[in-house]
Amino acid sequence: MQSFIHVPPNSHFPIQNLPFGIFSTQQNLSPRVGVAIGDQILDLTAITTLFEKYVPELKNPSNVFSQPSLNSFMSLGKPIWQATRRFLQSILSHDNPELQDNEELRQKAFVAQQSAKMHLPAHIGDYTDFYASKEHATNVGTMFRGKDNALMQNWVYLPVGYHGRSSSIVISGTDIVRPCGQISPDKNQPPIFGPSAKLDFELEMAFFIGSGNKLGARIPIDQANNHIFGLVLMNDWSARDIQAWEYVPLGPFLGKNFGTTISPWVVTLDSLEPFLVNGPIQDPAPLPYLKDNIPSAYDIHLEVKIKPNNSDSFKTLTRSNLRYMYWSLKQQLAHHTVNGCNTRPGDLCGTGTISGPTEDSRGSLLEITWNGQNEVDGIKRKFIEDGDEIVLTGYCQGEGYLVGFGECYGKILPALQ
Amino acid sequence: MQSFIHVPPNSHFPIQNLPFGIFSTQQNLSPRVGVAIGDQILDLTAITTLFEKYVPELKNPSNVFSQPSLNSFMSLGKPIWQATRRFLQSILSHDNPELQDNEELRQKAFVAQQSAKMHLPAHIGDYTDFYASKEHATNVGTMFRGKDNALMQNWVYLPVGYHGRSSSIVISGTDIVRPCGQISPDKNQPPIFGPSAKLDFELEMAFFIGSGNKLGARIPIDQANNHIFGLVLMNDWSARDIQAWEYVPLGPFLGKNFGTTISPWVVTLDSLEPFLVNGPIQDPAPLPYLKDNIPSAYDIHLEVKIKPNNSDSFKTLTRSNLRYMYWSLKQQLAHHTVNGCNTRPGDLCGTGTISGPTEDSRGSLLEITWNGQNEVDGIKRKFIEDGDEIVLTGYCQGEGYLVGFGECYGKILPALQ
Repeated sequence: MQSFIHVPPNSHFPIQNLPFGIFSTQQNLSPRVGVAIGDQILDLTAITTLFEKYVPELKNPSNVFSQPSLNSFMSLGKPIWQATRRFLQSILSHDNPELQDNEELRQKAFVAQQSAKMHLPAHIGDYTDFYASKEHATNVGTMFRGKDNALMQNWVYLPVGYHGRSSSIVISGTDIVRPCGQISPDKNQPPIFGPSAKLDFELEMAFFIGSGNKLGARIPIDQANNHIFGLVLMNDWSARDIQAWEYVPLGPFLGKNFGTTISPWVVTLDSLEPFLVNGPIQDPAPLPYLKDNIPSAYDIHLEVKIKPNNSDSFKTLTRSNLRYMYWSLKQQLAHHTVNGCNTRPGDLCGTGTISGPTEDSRGSLLEITWNGQNEVDGIKRKFIEDGDEIVLTGYCQGEGYLVGFGECYGKILPALQ
Repeated sequence: MQSFIHVPPNSHFPIQNLPFGIFSTQQNLSPRVGVAIGDQILDLTAITTLFEKYVPELKNPSNVFSQPSLNSFMSLGKPIWQATRRFLQSILSHDNPELQDNEELRQKAFVAQQSAKMHLPAHIGDYTDFYASKEHATNVGTMFRGKDNALMQNWVYLPVGYHGRSSSIVISGTDIVRPCGQISPDKNQPPIFGPSAKLDFELEMAFFIGSGNKLGARIPIDQANNHIFGLVLMNDWSARDIQAWEYVPLGPFLGKNFGTTISPWVVTLDSLEPFLVNGPIQDPAPLPYLKDNIPSAYDIHLEVKIKPNNSDSFKTLTRSNLRYMYWSLKQQLAHHTVNGCNTRPGDLCGTGTISGPTEDSRGSLLEITWNGQNEVDGIKRKFIEDGDEIVLTGYCQGEGYLVGFGECYGKILPALQ
């Protein structure tokens, strides 16, 4: 498969990918739906007549694609997402003249990514974060409860999850202000108030709910993939010192809800299907409602880089892979809804920090520096400092092409006085 | 103050109250903004010309009041809420002929509450639940960690809170399906899957954010009341057995997110002002950002009643009062945003279970039956059974009138197979 749009082999956005996003331009400030191809965006509002001709089952495409979020498109369901994807692959194909040879339409339909502003891809109603990497949970548990008590008893039976804050989810490129809060450096003294001194990233991915389920109903695990629209990269910024003091007994709150950054392009499950692999062996066997068919893990290479405030270049902090994650996306969604909890188009579910089995695949500074005991090799960092920039990237390696996620970038600004 | 609309002395909705809600009727299915007065609803979309005349600072009232949520009105800010309240008290007053003597307009403007359907008052972006009653936290802590460890060390320094699920917040009257989930009756055995056997209510109140704050900014405690629109009753249904197994280390999830019921009428802070009282003494003194002026507690009488599935009548389960709550609403909001977490109009913040100092003022069956050790006096209940109905009510006692919250009602349906 090849597009008439030039796509270099190291591009994240070949015709095999075609992720969806929300963008605007100087010429047209209305946020709208586009698809990434090479270094271009195909503006779907510009080709609605083609949609009417070739995807008639998608009713009123001009309305659906001129929305400032993907929610409307997401709510149409998997058959429509798939028909859309098939049509886009066809219309972008190098052997299809219809768009390729229509110079006027091409002028209108393509926008350079460089000149576009990206927006949150969806209106996120609810945001859930799981804790689905065994290595991450084990590392954190070892640090705080010792090696023998590292994993809580429930961890191997269910994908532990909790609700996060949706208002503070921001698009890649948004600056993050260092949070202040209560910190307890000395357990025998009252807490103090001040800027977090243990600001961290978390390497995560997150999936968007496409079509939801009603309150009181469930999404069975064999239906879960029909409800998942696609994936993004996510940096779940964390203030470890605020979190450590506040989180008992009801979980993280101000240590997390000051900002969560996601990448702008939602990569669909269909484009990830070639990269399905077996995940970790699950022992004990999951309860029947969590019993999954294999393969259900995705081979997505992940990397986190830092540009320290006094440096001109990015340095790799860690390399991991989504395939290390213990609980699959399907298991997460089946568990989330087994009690009848409803989900809606645009809801976001994070995987939790994705750490791998080796020291160089740990997904947070908490783990990399072992809660500040060590510095990161080669740079003077235990945690993130003001002015530091963090970028997450990820891709699947196809034969001669990548299916990539672009970047999830953020810079830390000093705390409020 | 008296209205030309007849209001019996035991009504929750005299002219001193005037809570806001969203309703629809058989004749007009569009959900829209109304205000409760006696057993009537004043349809604000019917009197927009009066708004234009008397509240000109409220721009485009027909648009604001024809919305299916209060978010638009909430976002206008406290001066507009107050001007609206003053105008409504005036136009409803027994000595004001303008609406009173306009028979045609009265016909259009008033709807019997009995013939209206109530809807969620706001589109709730984020829902936070606090844990702000010392008695509740102490009871629960004593049960699970023993008397000496009942309160976590952080509890007296900050209003502990966590994020809940906004999608499953429903309006009073909505049936709740008993959730299924993982339960661990025997710690030495794997968990089992099944319907919750420890289904509980939680007596809470909740406040709606009116005007929010930007990401990275704060709401200082002396500004907090300008951002709080009003309060409702809330029943935070809880599956204690699911919660007990899942909640470490990240907090409650499926034990809570199958349903949360709120009452339909949002009682404004202005109408509650006459009922300000001193709350509990706070020792140790709060950190400066949580230092509150007194009085900042509200004297709101609360009651929970149950109609068991085999009974024809309601029986009181508990009587409590919002004034028992340790952390004030202002402290909750100041804490929530001190790290720069943004809030938006329509966000909801629950107080957590409001238990009082005596055994008959405990705000949940968990506490009343001491985790099922005892039965409720006079009825065979340790937890809620299928077909049971639970109703929360609340009011402030004025001189010769009540400022009430109406009811927060729900019935439990059997679990899915």
